[in-house]
Amino acid sequence: MIRRASSDNLTIALDGMGGDNAPESVIEGALLALKTNPDINFIIHGDANHLEPLLQAKPVLAARSRIAHTTEVVENDDKPSFALRRRRDSSMSHAIKSVRSGDAAGAVSAGNTGALMAMAKVLLRTLPGIDRPAIGGIMPTQAGSSVMLDLGANVTCDAENLFEFAVMGDAFARIILHKENPSIGLLNIGTEDAKGNEAVKSAATMLRESDLKLNFYGHIEGNDIGAGTVDVIVTDGFTGNVALKTAEGTAKMFAFFLKDALNKSTLANIGKLFSGLALKKLKNKMNPSLYNGAMFLGLNGIIVKSHGGTDALGFANAINVTINLAKDDINKHIIDEMIQSGHIAPEDDEDIDVEEIE
Amino acid sequence: MIRRASSDNLTIALDGMGGDNAPESVIEGALLALKTNPDINFIIHGDANHLEPLLQAKPVLAARSRIAHTTEVVENDDKPSFALRRRRDSSMSHAIKSVRSGDAAGAVSAGNTGALMAMAKVLLRTLPGIDRPAIGGIMPTQAGSSVMLDLGANVTCDAENLFEFAVMGDAFARIILHKENPSIGLLNIGTEDAKGNEAVKSAATMLRESDLKLNFYGHIEGNDIGAGTVDVIVTDGFTGNVALKTAEGTAKMFAFFLKDALNKSTLANIGKLFSGLALKKLKNKMNPSLYNGAMFLGLNGIIVKSHGGTDALGFANAINVTINLAKDDINKHIIDEMIQSGHIAPEDDEDIDVEEIE
Repeated sequence: MIRRASSDNLTIALDGMGGDNAPESVIEGALLALKTNPDINFIIHGDANHLEPLLQAKPVLAARSRIAHTTEVVENDDKPSFALRRRRDSSMSHAIKSVRSGDAAGAVSAGNTGALMAMAKVLLRTLPGIDRPAIGGIMPTQAGSSVMLDLGANVTCDAENLFEFAVMGDAFARIILHKENPSIGLLNIGTEDAKGNEAVKSAATMLRESDLKLNFYGHIEGNDIGAGTVDVIVTDGFTGNVALKTAEGTAKMFAFFLKDALNKSTLANIGKLFSGLALKKLKNKMNPSLYNGAMFLGLNGIIVKSHGGTDALGFANAINVTINLAKDDINKHIIDEMIQSGHIAPEDDEDIDVEEIE
Repeated sequence: MIRRASSDNLTIALDGMGGDNAPESVIEGALLALKTNPDINFIIHGDANHLEPLLQAKPVLAARSRIAHTTEVVENDDKPSFALRRRRDSSMSHAIKSVRSGDAAGAVSAGNTGALMAMAKVLLRTLPGIDRPAIGGIMPTQAGSSVMLDLGANVTCDAENLFEFAVMGDAFARIILHKENPSIGLLNIGTEDAKGNEAVKSAATMLRESDLKLNFYGHIEGNDIGAGTVDVIVTDGFTGNVALKTAEGTAKMFAFFLKDALNKSTLANIGKLFSGLALKKLKNKMNPSLYNGAMFLGLNGIIVKSHGGTDALGFANAINVTINLAKDDINKHIIDEMIQSGHIAPEDDEDIDVEEIE
């Protein structure tokens, strides 16, 4: 049975203790999210001694929230296998369990990524036909935004995995980018068919023969990410993680050089006063908080990972992503596409290999 | 026998016909390079009917150059295997042959990368102990510059390949960055030892047990490239190519947003006038021409690839990189390090597999 959102009056589970700025950023983020989605309810998992006073200071939020008390916390350096065995009573684990039970339509955590993925895989299992879940995120581009996956859940991927990522990325982009037919590109080291590794080459063939063929743009290169050449960037978790972080590092370097150049001359400082508004706009456009909220695609339930170091604005954005994915029933889109492509395999009960994502 | 530069009075071979702006950018680039290195001589390979009038217009360059006439040209869409069989008489092929014969201490081409690598492998062979050549380039960082390899010659790499890249990158960085003990990082999806694929994990162990152990920083992530965390970034050709182009695309996106933000408001335009000098400095710092010139490391001879779309300034930079590598005898550094690490294998005569880089 595919877990579905039951109504417009959604409940979202929050890991109240996950992330560098938790629980404050969680509480303040939830309050901010209520501004965009005023009819949402929250279950906030974590230590009531910490959470209760913070929540009572925000009566608007308190009216729509309940605290699910638990004292155990997943630490940032907990290995996924350790978290699975020893953190069963943690705020993270209970947030996922709220999704499993149907009490919540989705969960958000800013905690340990590996632990969250391991727990979510075991507690929710994958969708029928999906071999491996992937992390899908939002990237700023010259053209607006694109989605990219996998951002790091799977170090090595075969063609079938990449095909499944394309199906999931397509559904993700439809909801997040509001596009009916998002274009899909395979990240490669050249645009010619003969370029790249076997997985990428075979995945291209599979996509050309599939129901998604009209949306398939073909191979793209690293510079196409910033250019916004396609809506959905499909790649393995190693390459995707490096590309995501390389883009982050380059943006930081550029901002550093800009600041440095503007601070070094008096004339430039006068100029900065005048152009301050424009530079502020630029800063806002590149604000990582606006792109915060990566979905664990392919699980039987909606789990969204917030950046660990995010602020309240970023956490609010991750909550809003979760709400949109739940309202638009992303997993139904994925299943429909898997059926139409003839890629649904019978469900099986084999144990999930947790080691692979450590 | 390792090919060596014979004296201070070096000769560099130029592929006069390779690149989008050839032959003009080649001739003008060579003239620019003479300003930094006035005692260099050039052999310019290509069509004398095109080259002669351009060269005669620059008497300073003409006095230090000779044209080696050939009419055949490697096209941008020639497959490496095709170029190997059918472009034996091309300007690119003859430029490499100048290095093989010892007439030139190094060669520069802005032509087809795959063809250049295939021809260079066949004509020059690899250095003893080096399994596969790699493309090493220069990256701008917050801290100055770093070198990165492989940028795309090898789609898949094992631990031994990555180890050899580290040895070659170390030698490259000593000369290009003028550092006695450049720090070396392995590009990965996390900094913990347990992260990453088998090749990266084993390469880390090899480096820790080698002569380079004191320079080995450990695993780095994509954001460490722009931060300048290490001097030498080691990765496979797929990841390296994607990271390089992702960084380029992100810098372009940032510049696009900045221009857009500054053009949109009148106040910002006034500000731009004042801060123009600072912004020009920023533009200069990020100018790709300044980082142009990627070496094909691991070949028995110095071959430098210029970006195909580069201008005269970029081509001049690639020539200067070649001169520095020749003067400082990079291949001697690589061989010495391979001997000290006990990684020199007996030379063999097996045929070079050209297909693998297509």
